[in-house]
Amino acid sequence: MTSNAGDKGLLIVLSGPSGVGKGTVCSMLRKLAPELVYSVSATTRSPRAGETEGDNYFFTSKDKFRSMIEKDELLEWAEYVGNYYGTPRSFVRDTINAGKDIILEIEVQGAMKVKQKFPEGVFIFLMPPSLDELKNRIETRGTETDESIRNRLSVAVDEIRLLEHYDYAVVNDQVETACSRIRSIITAEHCKRERIMPYVNSWMEEVR
Amino acid sequence: MTSNAGDKGLLIVLSGPSGVGKGTVCSMLRKLAPELVYSVSATTRSPRAGETEGDNYFFTSKDKFRSMIEKDELLEWAEYVGNYYGTPRSFVRDTINAGKDIILEIEVQGAMKVKQKFPEGVFIFLMPPSLDELKNRIETRGTETDESIRNRLSVAVDEIRLLEHYDYAVVNDQVETACSRIRSIITAEHCKRERIMPYVNSWMEEVR
Repeated sequence: MTSNAGDKGLLIVLSGPSGVGKGTVCSMLRKLAPELVYSVSATTRSPRAGETEGDNYFFTSKDKFRSMIEKDELLEWAEYVGNYYGTPRSFVRDTINAGKDIILEIEVQGAMKVKQKFPEGVFIFLMPPSLDELKNRIETRGTETDESIRNRLSVAVDEIRLLEHYDYAVVNDQVETACSRIRSIITAEHCKRERIMPYVNSWMEEVR
Repeated sequence: MTSNAGDKGLLIVLSGPSGVGKGTVCSMLRKLAPELVYSVSATTRSPRAGETEGDNYFFTSKDKFRSMIEKDELLEWAEYVGNYYGTPRSFVRDTINAGKDIILEIEVQGAMKVKQKFPEGVFIFLMPPSLDELKNRIETRGTETDESIRNRLSVAVDEIRLLEHYDYAVVNDQVETACSRIRSIITAEHCKRERIMPYVNSWMEEVR
């Protein structure tokens, strides 16, 4: 044990309400934290120009995808405009077993499904900095009526209520600061007592 | 909520087996993390040249100290060569209520007493990097017999077993790295869901 890394990697699930900036934070993380592996989704849609297998997506037939569903080989999946999208369990498992941390950026419904299948993941909820900021973002979207704005605000706050199922909340006030908090959370998770305790127990045995 | 700080500060208890380097890590933290408050002990011994009240220690009479014990005003205390030493609860409480984090560096027995009185603290255990390193440190201490070395190693490993009562283990392989891990743990603790949830609940009420 020369580091606090432990043997196994962690699954980090980064989620949060729509519009909070998950994608922006994740893009910045890719630059700042190249040691993290980024989860790759399986999809049944066709590759677009420039997309490569295993990099952007795992491109899969519908039959294959349905068979993955049946065999419980996906941590979550959803259908969107006639195509399937999902998170292959094997990619997550192999990365973790190789001792690397893997990050999965996903909307709140998907994150809750992942939690059911992989409760040992570290669930991080990206938060807007304030209720006013949330209101601002919703109001400046367009020419909506007061009632529609109120409805959309209510939906957003309901989404934020899902925070109760997460381990951590990270305020996205500044992208770099949010990334730095996420990296601190990953470091702290590697320092958790239960990850180090097996080493200590092996020391005890060796000394006796 | 413009940061992940929350309103209240945290009590960070930094402990670990004797010889692991708690003092060195804490001195480095003072340089690297001036935003942290460092706990000041009460003592009944006389001030030495250059020591100032409230900075090095709170200098106290024995009567006053005994009265503090009776009134449960100490998070822990111990007697050492005829004098009392202890951690005043009020200093910790006032710092936390002012929204600042306070760090208490203490040996393992003291840390366990603090845990009884202040279980909501964040307990960090500083670890030697390996069993070999621990053996090295013990063997190079002097001209001891094999049996005495084995005994001291056994005591040290027993001390390390106390890790099971802590929240985190930080490996002291390099002082700066250990400090960086400790700071990450503090950041992560501030991001814990239960610290942010009250804000979200207040948003819910405001929107309804």
